[in-house]
Amino acid sequence: MCPLAAPVQRPSGMSVGRYRPAETIPLPDRTWPDRRITKAPRWLSTDLRDGNQALIDPMTPGRKRKMFDLLVQMGYKEIEVGFPSASQTEWDFVRSLIEDDAIPEDVTISVLTQAREDLIDRTAQSLVGAHHAVIHMYNAIAELFRRVVFHNTEAETVDLARRGTGWVIRAIEEHLPDTPVGYEYSPEIFTQAPVDFAVEVCNAVMDVWQPDDEREIILNLPATVEVSTPNVYADRIEYFGRTIAHRDNVCVSMHCHNDRGCAVAATELGMMAGGQRVEGCLFGHGERTGNVDLVTLGMNLYSQGVDPQIDFSDMDRIRRTVEYCTGMPVPARQPYAGDLVYTAFSGSHQDAIKKGLEDLEARGRAQGRTIHEVDWLAPYLPIDPHDVGRTYEAVIRVNSQSGKGGMAYLMKSDHHLDLPRRLQMEFSRVVQDRADASGREISSEELWRLFHDEYLERAEPIGALDFTVGAARGLTSVDATIGFNGRDERINGEGNGPLSAFIDALGQVGLTVKVLDYTEHALTSGGDAYAAAYVEVEVGRGDDAVVLWGVGIDPDITTATLKAAVSAVNRA
Amino acid sequence: MCPLAAPVQRPSGMSVGRYRPAETIPLPDRTWPDRRITKAPRWLSTDLRDGNQALIDPMTPGRKRKMFDLLVQMGYKEIEVGFPSASQTEWDFVRSLIEDDAIPEDVTISVLTQAREDLIDRTAQSLVGAHHAVIHMYNAIAELFRRVVFHNTEAETVDLARRGTGWVIRAIEEHLPDTPVGYEYSPEIFTQAPVDFAVEVCNAVMDVWQPDDEREIILNLPATVEVSTPNVYADRIEYFGRTIAHRDNVCVSMHCHNDRGCAVAATELGMMAGGQRVEGCLFGHGERTGNVDLVTLGMNLYSQGVDPQIDFSDMDRIRRTVEYCTGMPVPARQPYAGDLVYTAFSGSHQDAIKKGLEDLEARGRAQGRTIHEVDWLAPYLPIDPHDVGRTYEAVIRVNSQSGKGGMAYLMKSDHHLDLPRRLQMEFSRVVQDRADASGREISSEELWRLFHDEYLERAEPIGALDFTVGAARGLTSVDATIGFNGRDERINGEGNGPLSAFIDALGQVGLTVKVLDYTEHALTSGGDAYAAAYVEVEVGRGDDAVVLWGVGIDPDITTATLKAAVSAVNRA
Repeated sequence: MCPLAAPVQRPSGMSVGRYRPAETIPLPDRTWPDRRITKAPRWLSTDLRDGNQALIDPMTPGRKRKMFDLLVQMGYKEIEVGFPSASQTEWDFVRSLIEDDAIPEDVTISVLTQAREDLIDRTAQSLVGAHHAVIHMYNAIAELFRRVVFHNTEAETVDLARRGTGWVIRAIEEHLPDTPVGYEYSPEIFTQAPVDFAVEVCNAVMDVWQPDDEREIILNLPATVEVSTPNVYADRIEYFGRTIAHRDNVCVSMHCHNDRGCAVAATELGMMAGGQRVEGCLFGHGERTGNVDLVTLGMNLYSQGVDPQIDFSDMDRIRRTVEYCTGMPVPARQPYAGDLVYTAFSGSHQDAIKKGLEDLEARGRAQGRTIHEVDWLAPYLPIDPHDVGRTYEAVIRVNSQSGKGGMAYLMKSDHHLDLPRRLQMEFSRVVQDRADASGREISSEELWRLFHDEYLERAEPIGALDFTVGAARGLTSVDATIGFNGRDERINGEGNGPLSAFIDALGQVGLTVKVLDYTEHALTSGGDAYAAAYVEVEVGRGDDAVVLWGVGIDPDITTATLKAAVSAVNRA
Repeated sequence: MCPLAAPVQRPSGMSVGRYRPAETIPLPDRTWPDRRITKAPRWLSTDLRDGNQALIDPMTPGRKRKMFDLLVQMGYKEIEVGFPSASQTEWDFVRSLIEDDAIPEDVTISVLTQAREDLIDRTAQSLVGAHHAVIHMYNAIAELFRRVVFHNTEAETVDLARRGTGWVIRAIEEHLPDTPVGYEYSPEIFTQAPVDFAVEVCNAVMDVWQPDDEREIILNLPATVEVSTPNVYADRIEYFGRTIAHRDNVCVSMHCHNDRGCAVAATELGMMAGGQRVEGCLFGHGERTGNVDLVTLGMNLYSQGVDPQIDFSDMDRIRRTVEYCTGMPVPARQPYAGDLVYTAFSGSHQDAIKKGLEDLEARGRAQGRTIHEVDWLAPYLPIDPHDVGRTYEAVIRVNSQSGKGGMAYLMKSDHHLDLPRRLQMEFSRVVQDRADASGREISSEELWRLFHDEYLERAEPIGALDFTVGAARGLTSVDATIGFNGRDERINGEGNGPLSAFIDALGQVGLTVKVLDYTEHALTSGGDAYAAAYVEVEVGRGDDAVVLWGVGIDPDITTATLKAAVSAVNRA
């Protein structure tokens, strides 16, 4: 046997000489690496501000409200709702929250402003009538920004922060004399400025704000661009906390972006280093790579036995709502929430999980408890999927994994149907049941028969379907005759498209249906114009509601879509 | 002004009591937080093993080869290519690489095996004919796995690792007597086992392997499930490196998964703590949340002036190839590679970037260099997008941002076209040119006219189009008559669908076209069956190639698709 030399890697040929490492600060007596996180930080959601501004299509007022309500339901108590001096839209949204009385007593909204007197004045006016609120002011202190963008000296920068704080105080006194209003100040960009200068500016701000035991100040230290390994951010947070004046009346807040993929780590190490408050977005929306993901942070605490003080127990609903509001999908590998994160594909992983769950069940039996009540410890599953409303897909799919991959492949290559991922999961259980019953492989023809019987052939309770579709004043109306439990029923409804109009119409025969997902494609078998439509719906209400898919195939795309809705209802 | 009390968060109501924090090891004299990364690690790509096994549709042999070739071109010198004893498919792929002579002399392939004598024997046989290779063996050492899955004592576990290593040596001697073969051993799951036990098992393995200056051993320390903040992983790596025998002949390798969203951080802190080799996948594929993302790790080094020794200069090609091979999209916010990561939506960000680029240009002029040659420092852009083949979209979009968001909205709401994101970007430049020329807002009707003229009305060089489509033996054929530069040409081609067959046919009139992306939808204006098709193509070859979109609208989906291809070609 000959020895093996370690392989030699070669220079990339890229322009690496153009870059310099980020500055670090010497902190040999740092204490954060010996600490651990034992309680939740204060959370601030900036989904409606930093998150919203970085969407391809910013949220409509209706979607913003839906997002706000979700954040409140989940338990967020500090929510940054916009930049009211920046545009009429932003202003209107803040006003609508206040005037509609949409903000619970224990929730504090926050609004962002630049350090300009007129903008601050308008910002304070936007808050009239709120129970309480926070005004969040920032100015640029990093050398690059001062030199290139603002042409400010350090002294002018300190002076602007000081004067801005004075404008905030004056605007609050003038417009909000009886409203409790807090103050947040951000030295921008903290991570690209000398840390001693950040401390100097923040101390100057506090000379004006005069925090005391009854009057805190939030000092937010943004990594608006992530420029270093996360330990460097933690060192800066620890140094800042040691050095800043009025430490007991300062809430040190963190605001990390994810340019190097380390925003979660920087925030967690920052919490160990004394950071008390965390700004971020659900699933990490925000400029470029996004803000830190509040879901991952919260669930990371949860998985270590620390209560996040946020309710993630219906993760799929949270995900669907955020996807609806942002118009962007949550990636399949997103921690705790992606489609694939509780799924083991490897046979050895599946086997280990199966044995682990059996062990937990046995332990539960011995204690007179269910598997969902015993202490959690299972191979390859950092948390019990049940705790966030998921199932043991990984286990359900033991021995059907090859069937599923192969099933989707055959449905596409032989039958021209490109099944959505969650429909694949659903149908794979049907296939698996058949495989278990027959004890052998399912052929491509049998597969088609199973699919056909399950999705395309059901005629109860809805049988025949005739309809006309019309559109007027931006609304689509559907007028349909359906066979329903053996009788013909004439129903009609309206919506923003044929599907929603038809769903609306189904209410007339007592069916409560909500569309969760919809996709369609042309059949790829050549020049014909058949379309396949796939609809994921929730049928029923509350505890009795079921979520499932329907499929329709027809030369007419609208017919295919309505058939898919009928298919789902008939399966429910 | 009334003081504001900090908001009080409430318990989540979730079952947090079921969880315990991960174990830490005391290491008060750790040195890693004072270190920084100054050179690239050894990289191992496991895209074809851990990455592939966690895809919804595992790669076909053709896609695997494409992935392998991409990895080689990028500069990876260690590539884990499969689990040859696990299935015939895996075995066949390893054999095809060797028999097709697809592995360059300076690239080492690696194959994974469990610690079973027959599997190890078959694994060694799969490598016959390779220039050199690494056999990678693992066994479970974590208490949970020993107890629940394998029913092994610690002593039996050590013994299995020792015997397995002996089987590896014997199999190499028998089947690969003249081949340089290295050895990698993984104590699984390192992060869920006592670190001293991991050291004990690894030392026992080395008693058998007998590493020396001519015979290294790779000891790989997997975080197969991420269970703690990343500093805990770094502490374990530093402790392991201090404690393990034969340190100079050991290559400490890391294998991090991303369950807590901190795989990049754990790997980077682990490198600071003495980890020398990194296993991962492009864009972080792999079981559940995936393996650590090799692209982010490499580009993080690059942005700090450290040569990653991997070529990322054509990031979009890398991304497209990985998307093709895996069948999964790279998310829009993926660091360095996502669609949105060099884009600033905020007006103030855009303004700062614009001024920053002007500053860089001025500095370049003063030095007689271009903006791509000067040291990089720009607001909100951690690297020069040009270095990875991207453009300054953020800047191009200054003042057109509202136009773009609004443009996409109007195209959808008024004209029923749901433009793909990159087509939005392309069309926004057309709109911006018009807006700049006219100096005023573009109305919805003008927008449609612009779109129509740009995408739907071009008749040069290809004018009229008639075609028939047929399908036989799984192949689609297209027979078409096109007006080409004013003359009728009869062309025909084959492919796996009408589009690829038509693209093939275009070769007969000298057009080199490659499809990069394709999407279509039914027009949502009611019950009609018009379809819109969007095709992104590369037209031409090499330096002259252009990438652009075409659009087709027609009642027949196939016609719409071919019209889209014609539209793109005519725009090129």
